[in-house]
Amino acid sequence: MSDTGVTVKKNQDFSEWYVEVILKAELADYAPVKGCMIIRPDAYAVWEKIQEVVNQKIKATGHRNTYFPMFIPEAFLRKEAEHFEGFTPEVAWITQGGDTTLEERLAVRPTSETIMYAMFSKWVRSWRDLPLKINQWCNIVRWETKATKLFLRTREFLWQEGHTAHVTCEEAEKEVMWALNMYKDVVENFLAIPVVIGTKSDSEKFAGALYTTALESIMPDGKALQMGTSHNLGQHFAKVFDVKFVGEDKQDHFVWQTSWGITTRLIGAMIMVHGDDKGLVMPPKVAPVHVVIVPILFKGVEAEAIAAKTKEIAQILKSKGLSVVLDDRNEYTPGWKFNQWELKGVPIRIELGPRDLKQGQVVIVRRDTCQKAPVKEADIPSTVERLLQEIQDNMLSKAKAVLQEKTVCVKTYEEFKKVLEAKGGFLKATWCGSAECEAKVKEETGATIRVRPFKVEEPSTGCIVCGEKSRETVYFARSY
Amino acid sequence: MSDTGVTVKKNQDFSEWYVEVILKAELADYAPVKGCMIIRPDAYAVWEKIQEVVNQKIKATGHRNTYFPMFIPEAFLRKEAEHFEGFTPEVAWITQGGDTTLEERLAVRPTSETIMYAMFSKWVRSWRDLPLKINQWCNIVRWETKATKLFLRTREFLWQEGHTAHVTCEEAEKEVMWALNMYKDVVENFLAIPVVIGTKSDSEKFAGALYTTALESIMPDGKALQMGTSHNLGQHFAKVFDVKFVGEDKQDHFVWQTSWGITTRLIGAMIMVHGDDKGLVMPPKVAPVHVVIVPILFKGVEAEAIAAKTKEIAQILKSKGLSVVLDDRNEYTPGWKFNQWELKGVPIRIELGPRDLKQGQVVIVRRDTCQKAPVKEADIPSTVERLLQEIQDNMLSKAKAVLQEKTVCVKTYEEFKKVLEAKGGFLKATWCGSAECEAKVKEETGATIRVRPFKVEEPSTGCIVCGEKSRETVYFARSY
Repeated sequence: MSDTGVTVKKNQDFSEWYVEVILKAELADYAPVKGCMIIRPDAYAVWEKIQEVVNQKIKATGHRNTYFPMFIPEAFLRKEAEHFEGFTPEVAWITQGGDTTLEERLAVRPTSETIMYAMFSKWVRSWRDLPLKINQWCNIVRWETKATKLFLRTREFLWQEGHTAHVTCEEAEKEVMWALNMYKDVVENFLAIPVVIGTKSDSEKFAGALYTTALESIMPDGKALQMGTSHNLGQHFAKVFDVKFVGEDKQDHFVWQTSWGITTRLIGAMIMVHGDDKGLVMPPKVAPVHVVIVPILFKGVEAEAIAAKTKEIAQILKSKGLSVVLDDRNEYTPGWKFNQWELKGVPIRIELGPRDLKQGQVVIVRRDTCQKAPVKEADIPSTVERLLQEIQDNMLSKAKAVLQEKTVCVKTYEEFKKVLEAKGGFLKATWCGSAECEAKVKEETGATIRVRPFKVEEPSTGCIVCGEKSRETVYFARSY
Repeated sequence: MSDTGVTVKKNQDFSEWYVEVILKAELADYAPVKGCMIIRPDAYAVWEKIQEVVNQKIKATGHRNTYFPMFIPEAFLRKEAEHFEGFTPEVAWITQGGDTTLEERLAVRPTSETIMYAMFSKWVRSWRDLPLKINQWCNIVRWETKATKLFLRTREFLWQEGHTAHVTCEEAEKEVMWALNMYKDVVENFLAIPVVIGTKSDSEKFAGALYTTALESIMPDGKALQMGTSHNLGQHFAKVFDVKFVGEDKQDHFVWQTSWGITTRLIGAMIMVHGDDKGLVMPPKVAPVHVVIVPILFKGVEAEAIAAKTKEIAQILKSKGLSVVLDDRNEYTPGWKFNQWELKGVPIRIELGPRDLKQGQVVIVRRDTCQKAPVKEADIPSTVERLLQEIQDNMLSKAKAVLQEKTVCVKTYEEFKKVLEAKGGFLKATWCGSAECEAKVKEETGATIRVRPFKVEEPSTGCIVCGEKSRETVYFARSY
């Protein structure tokens, strides 16, 4: 671990703070390949927790994991025109295998619709083969030309992509909403990040989709971050890749499809939303370590008894299924250890010194509030269990209050610009639905429509840009 | 599922049988990219079981999962000369990102030593940072020019690669053996495939290693299959990538390193070893489905009662943690279902018809022996549990007997060639240790040294090739 704590304050230079926390807490490191990163064990453990939760949810609903090649022939990408336009500018191309130049260059998958659906057309024959619901966890490459940022924008990242094919549009619509709400549950109840959900405007939808739904939140610097998407692909790809089935009516039909994904960027969001000037704050439900125990040795007083007692406590907590570290290293001082484990965001610290030993107690410190309290030995397991839940709940509540504070209804374009400059965040504003007004806002302010809420609030005032009759109230923001 | 069963007999055309079983049982499919495959859900589920077991074992011993970029700059590969020679002929190269031609082409990882150890040199400072024990699950690309084969040789495959750095050579040696024995446990006790273990000869070792250990088995066609490797890398890479630490003696030292891996080829081995003329036979411990329940409806007699009873049985078995499919589809006959689930290798089938219902029993059929027996309703859970263990044990015993039958001690080079032509398999033969004799055997017979057993049997006869004093008895075979 690093020898020094975080030196930049979160509210002074958010961007610097973010990078420093990640590097010092050893969540990630810059790779010696431009635009790429290394996901180190403490961050990968969070990803594994996300995988565990998502796998449980998708398997319980009949989705099955699979693995498709990461190489996609250029001709496949070209088949769906919008899709090709959308993705080729950021495709990495394989042109040589060994000493041989390939006849057709191969894309490293920027997403897998095309190669998967080429197979769907072979596998799907009859209505009995539907719904087809698969998922894969894999690496994805998008050759970013913009500045990259650890976890949020790198040329390679990890994700999960669900792909389904259905008999009816209604079924596909249901699947889209199921995935979106599944993600909302994972992000809110495990990562403790509140989100807003809704559909994207046409200009922001997935290349080739009928429509895209998304979950978004606001980061502490006022910028929105897209946390996941779920697309209704309609029959666009089915027609291009000829994914047809014979229905119960004995007729040929094209399938209705969906795709949906979340990425390792979620880890970046977790760091941003919860971290503080001491470093990370890990939501207990995804924390790689729940409890760290630090023996406080004072001139060797009762050293053996303290060592024995801390081991015993660690054992008891482990037997409850918790992840516990007993940091009994001699080469570091307790103070140094406190700083290091705070930097790493471990939810609960337990301290035990000679005086505690005598009084049959320990001191428990919460990472989220830094509150300290003595706890009787017999009460440790129940207190830890209660505190982990309290910390999880408190982190979500705090984040919800922040999100609310950063969501502002604006009535005029002037107010829109003023609030955007002053604090960023979500700007709820009326919109006539035209691409022109949307483009004007983007060009003049850098803000885009992040989501159009599902529950349409019929606006009483006109479009914030053109003043014409508004179709709906939408969430604007500058975004990552 | 496919409409027809396996049409090729395993002992008639093994290679055809293998492909037919895989395609019809829907374990995999050829991808529309040359040399690549799609791992379909039933096979991916086996991979997930392997991941679960291996993860449990590596985490319990302090290894942590991580993720490194799949792009490796050419200069990195070039740093270790042997390594570069060994891998570049089969590297896929990225030369373009979007519209831009890259200044330095990037290799898609054929293995990750070089990019990982470049980071180790940054992360390892003192003996306190050691041992460093990490692992990653990822995709790997080797641009094969030989004919590819589903699961066994494809241009992209999935694997796990463990990488460790240690203070002493002894520690690294211990780690190498730990990984090898961990793999032996997984392959023998989960996949039910018996293996022999030992070191590789120098000509067969990993490019850049001090020595390589491996586990190998014999497939039904008499060819050996390498099932996993564990390398002692010595200090070769440490010197090239400058991975140094300050010891407790305050001096600089290079670390000692290991790397080890298993791949999705294990799934191919499982299919080959256990499958029969009806299709797959899944070892219960890795089977995606443990039990399939088929209601037998005869002219609708007792249809509702049978439906209710099969549901009840499914529920009870699921509550025991088993994976159960109740195949109550109306559109297929029981006979068709029997064939399909046998094709898919589900270990246990439960049938329930009107007569069974009346007698308060079911019929249980084992996939491995095809034995049928009536079982009283109350005894179903305990019988299923017992049978799953029996099937697992029986599959390993049978495979052990086959391996033993396919392992022959040969005394002369003539006998060596005769047995190799007649039945293949492992040929235990004396070897003087020279690369010349090894090369001669390879050139003249196609057989290579698969492993040199750890327990050296001091041979009383001379080298099978040159007649000079033998150093040891080794396992030769033709191999995949």
